[in-house]
Amino acid sequence: MQTAAKREHGKDIGLTAALAADAAGLRYEDLSADAITVAKQCLMDWLGVTIAGAEEPLTEILRAEAKEQGGAPQASLIGGGKTSLSQAALVNGSASHALDYDDVHTAMNGHPTVPVAPAVLALAEYRGASGQDVITAFVAGVETECRLGLAMGPSHYGRGWHNTATYGTFAAAAASANLLRLDEAQTAQALGIAAAEAAGLKSMFGTMTKPLHAGNAAANGLMAAKLAARGFTANPAAIETEQGFAATQSDSFEPAAGFDLPEGGFHIRNTLFKYHAACYLTHSSLEACRLLRETDGVRPDDIRDIKLQVNPGHFKVCHIPEPRTGLEAKFSLRLTTAFGLAGEDTARLETFSDAITARPDLIALRDKVDVVARDRIEGLTSDVIVELADGRTIIESFDVSEPARDLDAQWQRLDDKFRSLVEPRLGPEATERLIAACHGLEQQNDISAILAH
Amino acid sequence: MQTAAKREHGKDIGLTAALAADAAGLRYEDLSADAITVAKQCLMDWLGVTIAGAEEPLTEILRAEAKEQGGAPQASLIGGGKTSLSQAALVNGSASHALDYDDVHTAMNGHPTVPVAPAVLALAEYRGASGQDVITAFVAGVETECRLGLAMGPSHYGRGWHNTATYGTFAAAAASANLLRLDEAQTAQALGIAAAEAAGLKSMFGTMTKPLHAGNAAANGLMAAKLAARGFTANPAAIETEQGFAATQSDSFEPAAGFDLPEGGFHIRNTLFKYHAACYLTHSSLEACRLLRETDGVRPDDIRDIKLQVNPGHFKVCHIPEPRTGLEAKFSLRLTTAFGLAGEDTARLETFSDAITARPDLIALRDKVDVVARDRIEGLTSDVIVELADGRTIIESFDVSEPARDLDAQWQRLDDKFRSLVEPRLGPEATERLIAACHGLEQQNDISAILAH
Repeated sequence: MQTAAKREHGKDIGLTAALAADAAGLRYEDLSADAITVAKQCLMDWLGVTIAGAEEPLTEILRAEAKEQGGAPQASLIGGGKTSLSQAALVNGSASHALDYDDVHTAMNGHPTVPVAPAVLALAEYRGASGQDVITAFVAGVETECRLGLAMGPSHYGRGWHNTATYGTFAAAAASANLLRLDEAQTAQALGIAAAEAAGLKSMFGTMTKPLHAGNAAANGLMAAKLAARGFTANPAAIETEQGFAATQSDSFEPAAGFDLPEGGFHIRNTLFKYHAACYLTHSSLEACRLLRETDGVRPDDIRDIKLQVNPGHFKVCHIPEPRTGLEAKFSLRLTTAFGLAGEDTARLETFSDAITARPDLIALRDKVDVVARDRIEGLTSDVIVELADGRTIIESFDVSEPARDLDAQWQRLDDKFRSLVEPRLGPEATERLIAACHGLEQQNDISAILAH
Repeated sequence: MQTAAKREHGKDIGLTAALAADAAGLRYEDLSADAITVAKQCLMDWLGVTIAGAEEPLTEILRAEAKEQGGAPQASLIGGGKTSLSQAALVNGSASHALDYDDVHTAMNGHPTVPVAPAVLALAEYRGASGQDVITAFVAGVETECRLGLAMGPSHYGRGWHNTATYGTFAAAAASANLLRLDEAQTAQALGIAAAEAAGLKSMFGTMTKPLHAGNAAANGLMAAKLAARGFTANPAAIETEQGFAATQSDSFEPAAGFDLPEGGFHIRNTLFKYHAACYLTHSSLEACRLLRETDGVRPDDIRDIKLQVNPGHFKVCHIPEPRTGLEAKFSLRLTTAFGLAGEDTARLETFSDAITARPDLIALRDKVDVVARDRIEGLTSDVIVELADGRTIIESFDVSEPARDLDAQWQRLDDKFRSLVEPRLGPEATERLIAACHGLEQQNDISAILAH
């Protein structure tokens, strides 16, 4: 892999130049098998959440505005129709984050795929790029945002920026530059233009503007690369320069952290996926419940009592003890635990209905759940301790902040999630066709197979 | 005027809500005569610098990209053609700041018109709005950015943000909201969306991305208002909220400063205009030279010696003693003083040629100029002290950070500047027609008269 380290750029060049060189230089042959697999998983998962997110009101608004402003039919809107590159990136990027059900990454402390995939796919469709081109450009983008995130340190998010929006703009620019085959110098210009457009605030969480952040990042990054390709200029050391991105937006900037590469060479390997259409802080408990069912064979009727030990931080986020609506259910550790032990399909959006919160069997199970704080806090670990009618006690624990070890198992779970999201909308045949197309993305000569539906 | 103060909102509502209420509520009848006059002057001056800036390479790049992406013919591109609202705002906004020859304002410590006018004019053309609608919306925008700038305080620019870009995004949103007749609540949402898109760094100065900041601000602000009109949501207290615009981007936020109104009620009255196509820090000296010629009748042949007393800060910005190129001439206090005393037309872009730097008469005059630091520093005051052959010494002083008192005289100077910029491009007939249309803008039922050329 052509990394800054391997090319012996070391720390004698600036971070912007190093990120630009690595993004511009990345080729499909440089990718590890794991990186390729996880990239395809990210793209399939992105497609699933976007097909579902395309029906959200915020997406309808953006689509209507795009239609009014018009544009050449360069790229597909997920959900139907074609529009200009910028508008496709904007609308699809916003749609993909509308449900907050897309993947996450600890290195950039945000959502890695939603700002990058919409830009890459729009450009790839327009230029007739191959599946391998898409995978490569996408990885170039994700590596860029993860390395930038590590260099910027925790203060950026801490002060109030939304990393998905800010780092995502650089990532979309880097990915688009790779797809457009820009050279190192042009890519540095693209990152410079991106630095001047990177924006997005955590205070928008809970409004339509949070998903818009992802769409803007995708559209702005794509445009940055397009303009750089035409010779547009910016500061080519925009991240580390005086009064640049880091100086204005971080009190914890350590450029060296952006030069280090993770084990295996690719941050994308460590992407985390969401499998439940509920608050992320309910996910460790839901995964532990899955193990109780699948590994230990526990069924609701066997259970006398349930104790949930969670990170105490969860209490103020998702501990509505007796939820009355589907939305409240998403923020209820007790009820989601009941869902998990009863085998409800928590991947499915429709599961979180108002009706289900009134189901007697689930309420009975919910009322057996006692939530307490863990003594030792590690990542997002939850322990689910069930006392069975036969006197046995079984404990399962899970930490959703740890990347999956088994990528085949990850495929299976992502396929199931994709079916939960897409089958109700497109039917089983199209769903299976899309799954197959994503699994074999590196063999696709053109990517319309995953966009036409 | 419906100000936060007058409506007795006082300081018991947030700054975002107050700015939204004032922008949404502003009507033509509320405007003072001076505010109307200066608004028209800003718009005419904007048109002049944009017609000239439309020929710059950066504008050509943006126009080509807009053409490739396509769009409904909703609004005119200055220089010819029509495109979508967003693209018109982006391209025209960037063109208007390409020469850095547009107006400035000390309250927002940046360029007030370039992010606002392109959004207002594009929307006005699309919706068939009147000249009065344009003036009103434009003033609403300028007041918003000036009040926001005063509230944010000096640390925002100090740390590295480009106010024209950041405050300008809010201003474009406020102006567009006024033109679209959004109510207070919708306008607060528009300001919220704008807060999530406001970006731009001083480290881009000297690159094409500096003018792009203005275009982005115009396009993003316009889009924010369009989306808010469709029901898109954001944080409606985005400026002052926890982890909002001020918390992330100011260490000197004083919301009360954004509630105070200037004498006469309108910040726009205090807009400053550039009359010389050179570095702004040469302008006080050039104005003093103009007084020496016009008031005192001084001519080059009369002069034995010249002393220039300037703010010591000017030395590191524009003190190239013996410039060799037209570009260097713009940053030479000595040579621009020679231009001023010789009566060269420093408003004209073409004056700053390589050839003129080699003209013997001007070099002789330049070599008589001695630049020294002023003892008392007030604003941007320069003193030009000429010792004449007849033994007399004459001093003239000027401070270009003081707004003009005489608005009729300001019209005359702006008309002359407009002619310098536009006549070489469109010829005298079209130039005079545009000047007349801008002077009578409040009588125009549709604004195509100032956009069609």
